[in-house]
Amino acid sequence: MSSDSSQIVRTHRLEAFSDGVMAVIITIMAFGLKAPHGTNLAALRAQIPHLLVYVLSFVNIGIYWNNHHHLLRRTERISASVMWANLDLLFWLSLLPVMTEWVGTSYRHTEPAAAYATVALLAAIAYSLARSIIAANPQSPVSTLIGSDVKGLASIVVYVLAIGLAFVTPWASYALDVLVAVIWIVPDRRLAR
Amino acid sequence: MSSDSSQIVRTHRLEAFSDGVMAVIITIMAFGLKAPHGTNLAALRAQIPHLLVYVLSFVNIGIYWNNHHHLLRRTERISASVMWANLDLLFWLSLLPVMTEWVGTSYRHTEPAAAYATVALLAAIAYSLARSIIAANPQSPVSTLIGSDVKGLASIVVYVLAIGLAFVTPWASYALDVLVAVIWIVPDRRLAR
Amino acid sequence: MSSDSSQIVRTHRLEAFSDGVMAVIITIMAFGLKAPHGTNLAALRAQIPHLLVYVLSFVNIGIYWNNHHHLLRRTERISASVMWANLDLLFWLSLLPVMTEWVGTSYRHTEPAAAYATVALLAAIAYSLARSIIAANPQSPVSTLIGSDVKGLASIVVYVLAIGLAFVTPWASYALDVLVAVIWIVPDRRLAR
Amino acid sequence: MSSDSSQIVRTHRLEAFSDGVMAVIITIMAFGLKAPHGTNLAALRAQIPHLLVYVLSFVNIGIYWNNHHHLLRRTERISASVMWANLDLLFWLSLLPVMTEWVGTSYRHTEPAAAYATVALLAAIAYSLARSIIAANPQSPVSTLIGSDVKGLASIVVYVLAIGLAFVTPWASYALDVLVAVIWIVPDRRLAR
Repeated sequence: MSSDSSQIVRTHRLEAFSDGVMAVIITIMAFGLKAPHGTNLAALRAQIPHLLVYVLSFVNIGIYWNNHHHLLRRTERISASVMWANLDLLFWLSLLPVMTEWVGTSYRHTEPAAAYATVALLAAIAYSLARSIIAANPQSPVSTLIGSDVKGLASIVVYVLAIGLAFVTPWASYALDVLVAVIWIVPDRRLAR
Repeated sequence: MSSDSSQIVRTHRLEAFSDGVMAVIITIMAFGLKAPHGTNLAALRAQIPHLLVYVLSFVNIGIYWNNHHHLLRRTERISASVMWANLDLLFWLSLLPVMTEWVGTSYRHTEPAAAYATVALLAAIAYSLARSIIAANPQSPVSTLIGSDVKGLASIVVYVLAIGLAFVTPWASYALDVLVAVIWIVPDRRLAR
Repeated sequence: MSSDSSQIVRTHRLEAFSDGVMAVIITIMAFGLKAPHGTNLAALRAQIPHLLVYVLSFVNIGIYWNNHHHLLRRTERISASVMWANLDLLFWLSLLPVMTEWVGTSYRHTEPAAAYATVALLAAIAYSLARSIIAANPQSPVSTLIGSDVKGLASIVVYVLAIGLAFVTPWASYALDVLVAVIWIVPDRRLAR
Repeated sequence: MSSDSSQIVRTHRLEAFSDGVMAVIITIMAFGLKAPHGTNLAALRAQIPHLLVYVLSFVNIGIYWNNHHHLLRRTERISASVMWANLDLLFWLSLLPVMTEWVGTSYRHTEPAAAYATVALLAAIAYSLARSIIAANPQSPVSTLIGSDVKGLASIVVYVLAIGLAFVTPWASYALDVLVAVIWIVPDRRLAR
């Protein structure tokens, strides 16, 4: 990298790169399901927990992809700090396939449940961080953003609880993971027309 | 995601993301073929069924990619419901590599055949759903779309039959899977110039 | 797909999709190398043949990516036949990772060498086919293209020889595979300034 | 490829292709981590070295992606030599996932450490080469680039040392790999406003 004004990265390429990473994450994650061992319904049934975790992870990537889009279209040029905050988010999302596979095959145990919620927590923190950096940019039309990261903060709190509850029972932890996804999918009442 | 008017996603990014997912699906699916075990022609011949299912799945992705393109260029801005309908389609397509691998290695059995047709059915339903949501959008030039989803509905009916026939013989099920692909590839007579 | 004038696909999306497939092919192919079993230099040395085939396949994808680009920028709108010719090319390229892995692990044998050259041949035919379809399009500035597919035809002939020679010795087959790559990389004399 | 003026490739497609390759590299590399064998904390702890190498490789890809962006936006049209220099860079980066997996599972040994630094060195050389080719292009606003590749040259020197020190102790080699990443991430003082 040259020593010139290279701190500014065009948004569209950051978008394209992030979309690429998220597209690959989804497909790799699905491929991690693996073909059932055997050819009867029992073989298929044994895959159902893994399939359900995949659905949850898929929905999470879908939510991040959507949020990411809204975040980036607020600004045309982004600083190096936004770029690294974005890479931080992609880093944690890139661990989702491995976590999904671990939970999918060992879902009755505390450790995979706690690890999944930890990765989800760190992704949520990275997203809120990226959001606040963009909101702090004086060049962006961000006044509409300030004060509205309620969902982001709620996600962080719920994921912290999900980590703790994994040590009581993994099922409670998974329920909270699902709760965060529901919070994001359910459309805002205030926005309904 | 902020609580503002974030329900609208630009079409081009939805396209790019979907293209990414479909591009990865094709390649992952091919990689699932795996190098033949051994170095003689018998080793290659043992791979032919898997190769044939791969051809079918590849063609299906090609058809969806093409249809997807035509669907999205009807509108410049899309609602959250279109985005989730699109993610629903991508979800079922993302299961195609695993289904392809299962059929490729256990093609003589009912369960993989029925599972393949089920995933294909759910993808077809997702596509028709996305199509009808876009057609219902008053902002789109969609009057030309209404009443022309004959192929989509036919696909759904044939895939339902394919699931049922898998319990008689998987070969009949595969024949119907191929039939749907043929319905889509053969160009419309009315369109010939 | 609707029954309207949907035969026309915008070039840029075809490009993006093809780029996506080729980008994934390269990376999947590299990942197929696998980490050496063991930690000494002998373990690394055992990987060298696989690495060399990877280099050849990587260069081939690079050549196709480059040619593909030149082909598509000749036209802004492409017909369904170009789309399927393009998918045909991507299909054969998608088999390159598996072929690379097979040659990389069983390079002393006739079958992998013949199979690699066969896939390369079918990709070359697909490319020439796509090229001639585009050249036949009266809307394109293609007169400059006509009569200049010497390299494409030469590639096809050399790959046919490579298949045959694999039954004499795989090394001759690999030499011809390399020859085709050299034909494409060496810059045209006439173009030198 | 036709025998016409096909030496010129539009920058945006080179960017998109490179982004695709780098996006897949990151995700494949993360998937190489694999789900822990077992469900207790010891199983997770055994994955920590692999996770740390993944962080290093992820950061390296992030740095290259960022640098690559700055390099390419200097010019709108690029020659065949730039295209091949870029492919050379992507080639070495594509080996990063396999190297990461090797170091991740055999980090106490000289060979993986030396191999990792060698691949990193060859990627750094490829980048500096691409940079100097672009700088030599009279059409580009590159005078600002000339004389400022201090970081690129420093990286090359440090990686050479990292290869040598791997034969003393792999830990010194890894420390130098980290040093290069730090050199690139720490923002230029001169650029601070």
